[in-house]
Amino acid sequence: MQDTPPGAPGHPPDLDADELAALDAHWRAANYLTVGQIYLLANPLLAEPLRPEHVKPRLLGHWGTSPGLNLVYTHLNRAVSARDLDAVCVWGPGHGGPAVLAGSWLDGSYSDAYPDVTRDAAGMARLFHQFSFPGGVPSHAAPDTPGSIHEGGELGYSLAHAYGAALDNPELLVACVVGDGEAETGPLAAAWHSTKFLDPVHDGAVLPVLHLNGYKIANPAVLARVPEAELDDLLRGLGHHPLHVTGEEPATVHRLMAHAMDTALDRIAHIQRAARAGDATGERPRWPLIVLRTPKGWTGPAEVDGLPVEGTWRAHQVPLAHVRENPVHLRQLEEWLLSYRPRELFDTRGRPREPVLAHTPHGDRRLGANPHANGGLLLRTLPVPPLERHAVAVDTPGATAHQPTRVLGGLVEQVLEATAERRDFRLVGPDETASNRLQAVYRATGKAWQAETVPTDEHLARDGRVMEILSEHTCQGWLEGYLLTGRHGLFSCYEAFAHIVGSMANQHIKWLRAARRVEWRAPVASLTYLLTSHVWRQDHNGFSHQDPGFVDHILSKSPEVVRVYLPPDTNTLLAVAEHVLHSRDHVNVVVAGKDPTFDWLGLDAARAHCARGAGLWEWAGTERLGEEPDVVLACAGDVPTLEVLAAAALLRRHLPDLAVRVVNVVDIARLMPAEQHPHGMSDHEFDAVFTRDRPVVFGYHGYPWLIHRLAYRRAVHPHLHVRGYTEEGTTTTHFDMAVRNGIDRYRLVMDVLDRVPGLAVRAGGVRQLMADAHHRHHDWIRAHGTDLPEVAGWTWPG
Amino acid sequence: MQDTPPGAPGHPPDLDADELAALDAHWRAANYLTVGQIYLLANPLLAEPLRPEHVKPRLLGHWGTSPGLNLVYTHLNRAVSARDLDAVCVWGPGHGGPAVLAGSWLDGSYSDAYPDVTRDAAGMARLFHQFSFPGGVPSHAAPDTPGSIHEGGELGYSLAHAYGAALDNPELLVACVVGDGEAETGPLAAAWHSTKFLDPVHDGAVLPVLHLNGYKIANPAVLARVPEAELDDLLRGLGHHPLHVTGEEPATVHRLMAHAMDTALDRIAHIQRAARAGDATGERPRWPLIVLRTPKGWTGPAEVDGLPVEGTWRAHQVPLAHVRENPVHLRQLEEWLLSYRPRELFDTRGRPREPVLAHTPHGDRRLGANPHANGGLLLRTLPVPPLERHAVAVDTPGATAHQPTRVLGGLVEQVLEATAERRDFRLVGPDETASNRLQAVYRATGKAWQAETVPTDEHLARDGRVMEILSEHTCQGWLEGYLLTGRHGLFSCYEAFAHIVGSMANQHIKWLRAARRVEWRAPVASLTYLLTSHVWRQDHNGFSHQDPGFVDHILSKSPEVVRVYLPPDTNTLLAVAEHVLHSRDHVNVVVAGKDPTFDWLGLDAARAHCARGAGLWEWAGTERLGEEPDVVLACAGDVPTLEVLAAAALLRRHLPDLAVRVVNVVDIARLMPAEQHPHGMSDHEFDAVFTRDRPVVFGYHGYPWLIHRLAYRRAVHPHLHVRGYTEEGTTTTHFDMAVRNGIDRYRLVMDVLDRVPGLAVRAGGVRQLMADAHHRHHDWIRAHGTDLPEVAGWTWPG
Repeated sequence: MQDTPPGAPGHPPDLDADELAALDAHWRAANYLTVGQIYLLANPLLAEPLRPEHVKPRLLGHWGTSPGLNLVYTHLNRAVSARDLDAVCVWGPGHGGPAVLAGSWLDGSYSDAYPDVTRDAAGMARLFHQFSFPGGVPSHAAPDTPGSIHEGGELGYSLAHAYGAALDNPELLVACVVGDGEAETGPLAAAWHSTKFLDPVHDGAVLPVLHLNGYKIANPAVLARVPEAELDDLLRGLGHHPLHVTGEEPATVHRLMAHAMDTALDRIAHIQRAARAGDATGERPRWPLIVLRTPKGWTGPAEVDGLPVEGTWRAHQVPLAHVRENPVHLRQLEEWLLSYRPRELFDTRGRPREPVLAHTPHGDRRLGANPHANGGLLLRTLPVPPLERHAVAVDTPGATAHQPTRVLGGLVEQVLEATAERRDFRLVGPDETASNRLQAVYRATGKAWQAETVPTDEHLARDGRVMEILSEHTCQGWLEGYLLTGRHGLFSCYEAFAHIVGSMANQHIKWLRAARRVEWRAPVASLTYLLTSHVWRQDHNGFSHQDPGFVDHILSKSPEVVRVYLPPDTNTLLAVAEHVLHSRDHVNVVVAGKDPTFDWLGLDAARAHCARGAGLWEWAGTERLGEEPDVVLACAGDVPTLEVLAAAALLRRHLPDLAVRVVNVVDIARLMPAEQHPHGMSDHEFDAVFTRDRPVVFGYHGYPWLIHRLAYRRAVHPHLHVRGYTEEGTTTTHFDMAVRNGIDRYRLVMDVLDRVPGLAVRAGGVRQLMADAHHRHHDWIRAHGTDLPEVAGWTWPG
Repeated sequence: MQDTPPGAPGHPPDLDADELAALDAHWRAANYLTVGQIYLLANPLLAEPLRPEHVKPRLLGHWGTSPGLNLVYTHLNRAVSARDLDAVCVWGPGHGGPAVLAGSWLDGSYSDAYPDVTRDAAGMARLFHQFSFPGGVPSHAAPDTPGSIHEGGELGYSLAHAYGAALDNPELLVACVVGDGEAETGPLAAAWHSTKFLDPVHDGAVLPVLHLNGYKIANPAVLARVPEAELDDLLRGLGHHPLHVTGEEPATVHRLMAHAMDTALDRIAHIQRAARAGDATGERPRWPLIVLRTPKGWTGPAEVDGLPVEGTWRAHQVPLAHVRENPVHLRQLEEWLLSYRPRELFDTRGRPREPVLAHTPHGDRRLGANPHANGGLLLRTLPVPPLERHAVAVDTPGATAHQPTRVLGGLVEQVLEATAERRDFRLVGPDETASNRLQAVYRATGKAWQAETVPTDEHLARDGRVMEILSEHTCQGWLEGYLLTGRHGLFSCYEAFAHIVGSMANQHIKWLRAARRVEWRAPVASLTYLLTSHVWRQDHNGFSHQDPGFVDHILSKSPEVVRVYLPPDTNTLLAVAEHVLHSRDHVNVVVAGKDPTFDWLGLDAARAHCARGAGLWEWAGTERLGEEPDVVLACAGDVPTLEVLAAAALLRRHLPDLAVRVVNVVDIARLMPAEQHPHGMSDHEFDAVFTRDRPVVFGYHGYPWLIHRLAYRRAVHPHLHVRGYTEEGTTTTHFDMAVRNGIDRYRLVMDVLDRVPGLAVRAGGVRQLMADAHHRHHDWIRAHGTDLPEVAGWTWPG
């Protein structure tokens, strides 16, 4: 292992002249193609003098970061070819699109994916024209970019994505360019600690390239402006061995970069060999990391309009902004393009000349064609065990109770067991797997952990496939990277804190939405959230832990991607789990409780109910066959289902003649119009379930207005009254949460009394009983701090 | 300055016996009070043998972190008293409530805030009873906790809050306990870089205490399981000088802690003195940091039911879980409580004995009473200059155009100027101030920056009051800390990326909601988001940058706190800005464009319109006085307003007899029922604006269903047709974004034709014109990549 930093005295980097020339040719070609994409509408090879009409009327794109990215592409090509590496790269910096596209066009993978964008002058013209052009391609490494599993749009997630891709891919190298802007974000800062979770035996390697070009949009970057010794302390403190590549003279930088890359890859190979041979010292390896310090907008115009550009934040976007109007800018652009000596790089037909492609890998080894970056190609069906093994027996509804997530834990345990050899399933969560009652999984595998251990530790394992870190961002990033490279997983999380990754979920949905429209992308496994420890059972943790709004956020996003399920009991949770574990290209949100919950449906009934997504529970109602009910009691979510059934029982006892229909909704998108969501019911179906004109009292798990926004077009909507969480959160008891938010059984009965014509008058005594119960509740909790025995001990009368 | 680590050989910490005894007494008292809160319902002083009925029926709370927090409280008391420090503490660890409450009860600030919780046996009984009890107090340091500006509920924000509190408070010390669990979160990890933004001259000091008790809920903490040398590298790499306090023998830990605290405070004093005397070396100071390594659940039961508890994750919550039922647990609890020797600590009437309070500060110096932690007490009215200086002249609507945020920049510039001496206003943003066109502010102040500089840098200044870091989390955390300590600020952000702090915003709203109900808390300045670079003008940055959903998220939260404004032009933005800058205890979201926007209203009209929040724009419509219009065209947001007015102009040209009413909505909560939001319109008002039965075609800035969810109860709702953003995002042109999402002028005209009875037949030719315009649009952008000249050059016909 070579610990001397490259370029240190006495250790001159070596690179022969041909190799250097070839590397530089590839890099210049990529830079040329980058500038071409940003600026040119025509005349791609500069076959004639550049005229204003050759230039795009709207100049969009980001030059600043691109030459650095191109350098990394060039040198990864060299390393992949020389070592026959299986490698992908995560391109973190924002707006790095044109660089990644340039690399892909050069290695031929772009033409493979888009046959009309050929690797010649005509294809180059198309490559240039389409960039940031309406109907064309975006300025980020988006789903339509070959070789990409990461969009540098919203910054912060590159490193977690890279680690996710490396997990359980022992032969894979995942290079990851981290921009110095992105490095300031919280999610990126947290992801550095992934070094304590990567197993050198079963996982691949991540090689971070921290690219310090010094500036963000308008500011210097923090990490570029601390002394090198301080930066080294930081990187070592994060578990890395930093290798520095600093310079602006291309030949020098090529030499340093080639050497750093070789040193890093040698070191990685050594770490992996030692670990896999069982030679590990017991110490966590110090993984190498390259600090690449080159000027922002490197090789671009040094000065524009008398102001310095290269090496400053002014190089961030389009250094020459008025090329069509300003002849000086036009000349500068032409000189800039010619500075790459395009005739040396491309033949007269626009095809890259030999030296440009000297180090380009072939076939699947190309960064633009590695199948890990189109993970659906590698995806295998997940071996989900038969639900029968885990289902709870239900002879009579409500006679028994189970903890839904605890039973689910048994199912997930078996998935982990069945994938012990394949290693293509991971469970992630922020330190909450046991709190969420999934601890059965530890019978199948441990929690990934490479840091120090002590004798009292439990379930920690170097090869564990449960991933726990107290960072929802890192959990989400790991899982996204893992799924996009063709594996499966599940994210279990406290419901309220899913909001922490609301924006990441949003970006992943955008990725999937766009990826579904890219022909060559194979479907990947869905990202599924199990939201538990939910709003109605966070009475002990208080207001800060109570928020059901993640569902609202998700349901605003692309309907072809988003799915939301609220299974009301244990068997319905199993049925939903089976469905989502097999689903593809979706983001599923499953809201389920961890507390004991009555078992309402047997497995067959649960499966049928979940397949319908919403339906009548005849056994719970009192309507007469062939007649419309007097009122519909609807529910979605475990606690609302409990309260609605308790209300139904009260109505049956006190008003036995009232025809009550009970409807349960599992798949919340069923409420949407069929034109707005693929799961939406037709009006005909909807009316058959909810009626067109009867009062509907709906107990919903989350914010009540969500139901209105989904159902406002339905005939029955004027008669729809929704109860849900209305931000009346606090530290209290289970039932008091329901009372405070007006979703409790007594309130629901009063709602029915108020809405069925004439009933309030006829049943004044019942209303008084309900009001009395509320008084008893308030008095009791003040005195005892627990729920009324009649509520805590309530059972369905059957 | 003392660089030798305390406890290092040759440097024995010194603490005389009385001092040690007093510190230990305070700490034991706090521990006793903590255990009491978690367990006891009665018999607070153990005046009689502990019986099951003395114990709470539901045991809630978190012991694990508390003894460490109590230690910090004890030693901060000593330092504050000895040095007469102005100090607050941010208590980061989750569920640290009982410790902070114990400290506050001991220093008397709790009884000041809650006179019925006296500092005697009766008050102690109340303190114990209320904890995690329905109607009582939560397990976090919540708004009702004296001395707190931070709730340890959702983890990650303590350090940024601490820095926010220290900014512009040069005499203030802000201690900040960072739990080792919280340290794994992204927002916390990012906030460490605040060291590069804190000015030793104008800002106070932050003293982080990284509390490594080793465990989270169920796992070891990462930072507690890396070698100390690696941790030191990390902390030094973050710009700190670490001081270690490690131990479990109380006397030793007291000695080490006292010494570390003294060393840290000496060092801080030295840094500040040097900087303020102008003696700064030019080097950024290395601020001290204390690493406190003590066992989780320290001094609690060592073993329970044969399993180790103290020093393991099992001490996280309630170490003895079955005290009422299990006599062994009951005995263990009694022994545990008695181990603190309560008779030495409290007299027979429950009052703390002398040594316990020996180091407790007095008056406002008490951590529970420092006015900075009840910042509204210190709040001054913000000097917002007269809008007349900045307003744009509007003789005719739509005759001129301005960039709203650029003009707002001038206003903010003057606020910064007017507060140059007071230093109580900051502008924060993730590297986007100039991109968002607010750069006028740099005429008044610079960007805070303590890291290295180079000659080409612009606007960086050690004392700058614009805060830019590429971390929305850090920006938000800084601003929250700044506002909660009684100052003012503004957060400017790309609209889509506000989702990154969705969860933080949620928690701040929860804080404000709860704080408004705490009598002794004075109102603080509102947190205002300026969301710009919005969905309709991110056509160049593409789909990842397009998301208007932050408004939906915010409007789901407590109505007494949340406000959302969509000013349609420059003067309305100024009027809204004036209002929100003076507002208190709100979270305001202002969505405004940075691109040139027609000036629709003069300042007086803008003020009147914003005060109404929604109203008719008579000049834009064609309705006849005293008659109901044929159709209402409503709009909210700058781009929808543009498209609606363009549609109104098309209708006027092609169908001059159609009576069109144009309504503009600025304050979106006006649409809500008056019972649901304080700004909601009565039905009477609503019907007067929107009619009860005319077709309403509504162009809304964001997701169309938001308008439905706000307005579903209104009479006109069945006739309401909303156009908005429907996730049809991509890289394209301004107008194509409108076309793709169906909110463009031509589509709006077609919507009107389809909804006014009989009009579609009568005006078939107009429909054809609209369809033709769509065709022209598609052909033109494909050919030119820019918008149709008739759209790009459109002006209001006046």
